[in-house]
Amino acid sequence: MNSQTDFDAYEVGFDIPAKPGMDAADIQTPCLVLDLDALEYNISKMGDYAKAHGMRHRVHGKMHKSVDIAKLQEKLGGAVGVCCQKVSEAEVFARGGIRDILISNQVRDLVKIDRLARLPKLGARILVCIDDIANVADLSKAAQTHGTTIECLIEMDVGAGRCGVIGCDTVVGIAKAIDAAAGLKFGGLQAYQGAMQHIRDYDTRKARLDTAIAMVRDAIAALTASGLTPELVSGGGTGSYYFESRSDVYNELQCGSYAFMDADYGRVLDRSGTRIDQGEWKNALFILTQVMSHAKPDKAICDAGLKVQSTDSGLPVIFGRDDVQYVNCTDEHGEIADPAGVLNVGEKLRLVPGHCDPTANIHDWYVGVRGGKVEVVWPVSARGKAY
Amino acid sequence: MNSQTDFDAYEVGFDIPAKPGMDAADIQTPCLVLDLDALEYNISKMGDYAKAHGMRHRVHGKMHKSVDIAKLQEKLGGAVGVCCQKVSEAEVFARGGIRDILISNQVRDLVKIDRLARLPKLGARILVCIDDIANVADLSKAAQTHGTTIECLIEMDVGAGRCGVIGCDTVVGIAKAIDAAAGLKFGGLQAYQGAMQHIRDYDTRKARLDTAIAMVRDAIAALTASGLTPELVSGGGTGSYYFESRSDVYNELQCGSYAFMDADYGRVLDRSGTRIDQGEWKNALFILTQVMSHAKPDKAICDAGLKVQSTDSGLPVIFGRDDVQYVNCTDEHGEIADPAGVLNVGEKLRLVPGHCDPTANIHDWYVGVRGGKVEVVWPVSARGKAY
Repeated sequence: MNSQTDFDAYEVGFDIPAKPGMDAADIQTPCLVLDLDALEYNISKMGDYAKAHGMRHRVHGKMHKSVDIAKLQEKLGGAVGVCCQKVSEAEVFARGGIRDILISNQVRDLVKIDRLARLPKLGARILVCIDDIANVADLSKAAQTHGTTIECLIEMDVGAGRCGVIGCDTVVGIAKAIDAAAGLKFGGLQAYQGAMQHIRDYDTRKARLDTAIAMVRDAIAALTASGLTPELVSGGGTGSYYFESRSDVYNELQCGSYAFMDADYGRVLDRSGTRIDQGEWKNALFILTQVMSHAKPDKAICDAGLKVQSTDSGLPVIFGRDDVQYVNCTDEHGEIADPAGVLNVGEKLRLVPGHCDPTANIHDWYVGVRGGKVEVVWPVSARGKAY
Repeated sequence: MNSQTDFDAYEVGFDIPAKPGMDAADIQTPCLVLDLDALEYNISKMGDYAKAHGMRHRVHGKMHKSVDIAKLQEKLGGAVGVCCQKVSEAEVFARGGIRDILISNQVRDLVKIDRLARLPKLGARILVCIDDIANVADLSKAAQTHGTTIECLIEMDVGAGRCGVIGCDTVVGIAKAIDAAAGLKFGGLQAYQGAMQHIRDYDTRKARLDTAIAMVRDAIAALTASGLTPELVSGGGTGSYYFESRSDVYNELQCGSYAFMDADYGRVLDRSGTRIDQGEWKNALFILTQVMSHAKPDKAICDAGLKVQSTDSGLPVIFGRDDVQYVNCTDEHGEIADPAGVLNVGEKLRLVPGHCDPTANIHDWYVGVRGGKVEVVWPVSARGKAY
């Protein structure tokens, strides 16, 4: 799995937090650690679910930004490919051997469009989203320049209120423009409801998705009436995939966070009212940290602060401990309330990050652990690829 | 200035956002842009201030993580060297030619201590902080192993409540242990009051620093009475340096953010009640972003989200515009309220990030701009160096 990495070139504690074969106890902190058993459990479980429900699963590569994990999702989870958010990310996945890549986002800059139009030459099927008819001509021109085909999904705003169009007439109008444009192929609909994924209550999430499904159903009917039946209807995340997969309108899922879990997603409740990190999914991603000061008896300071995690969705949670609590995050430090003074300097803890996507994007490496040993060290292949 | 970078090896829009000599209009977004005139203004101004007040200025390299900027601070601002927070950061600065480096933090892990003890061999003076007498033996042993000298500052908690010791007896006890330890040299005191830097009101900040100064004065007296007069008394940040420099107890400043400014620091008020980004300092650091969707008439979506900035200290501010406002940040998108619909797809905006340090740490490059041209492209040399 590490065939691309020359570990001899790296120094542990400077370039890299660990090397394969090391004892897990010797991993340098702070860094990202993957529990490989938990990761494989999550990937296999979602893969089995998608297969059982007749859904394609296009895993969201923007979450992990890792070619190795995307390939594991293809192998163990039957993933059909990836989606991602940026052209530069798609380039990493295409160069890494992923053969079906959707940029689930708009690409408007002409330099980025030119790079996008070249991507099919790497052997990958390339899809992109459109929410503005003015985008069609630019994409078509670039595809013709490079002699390639770009498949285009129309992004619908099904409740997130961010990118995406509203209204069947608009959808049909853009679909016709795509269909008529040289170098482009009308591929279907992108209908991801991003704003409801983290709502705690199951019934509230269901109500939001019911609205989305109704909008998508109308759009499919209007497209079909115009002779442009969509091949792909893509959407669904870790907080909603069971709704899309039972809808009879979606045929492709785009889940990402299920593979890693994080503290904020973990607080989402399933149908029975159970936290999804307490039954549905396992925590696979951790920030390994070490206590490096304990000058006050009731407060330990660890080495994981804002430079190794994003706190936009809340502070990290110390895994498997209820006697100590991560209570404040500054640039390089985490403050841990330790009322009984149980932590020692040098002690290592696993933190469940508040939000996995922007946390993973800060790091260069994943350290995959099993049975107390470092089994793999994977690069965060598309780290920093924001262009 | 870019002698280390082989630009021919990089593709604009994949590896790098721009190359020197390009028009600023062609910079690929999102990325970090430095206004070089503003940066040089800030660096020179603080350098002149420190010189006029007889203070050493050890600039905080953890803020920018850039060897190029540290060298500019030495050249234009008379900086005596850098401080930083991690051994791996110190390695980057030492390898890059910085000759006086303080790790203004504890180093407790034995692997990190071993790496620290080797650093003087690169030709740099190396200092580290201690807040636990138990650390002395480990540092001494490693210094002896490598035949080097590590200078040790005792970190005092002067109000931040994080790392650091409290009480003159403790300070003197650790100083004696350092003084007696082979391979170590007692260097003085680290007394940075980190918790007051961002308090808006000047008088409140002054009151906090008066308390800190009194604690430091007592510690110096106790050390002097024990025959261990401290050579260095180091501290001071962008929100406090005028207090330390007039105190007669500190002799070294550690300012960082003054060079870049950010939205949160900018809201701090000077003695006259003026925001410090409206007179004292100029905004030099920006996230360059581009509008990439405007499917709703009153909302523009730009390409700068959580993957290019830390929102721990608030959302970014759109520089020089009061007709549009950045109102929400998701993984790859920023939502901009555009009530009059004045923004166009493709338009570029400069964002002042909420918090410069963890934002810079996400990026691989600084694009330095002057007069509409890209003048330099500097690596974020110690990006991700958290070990």
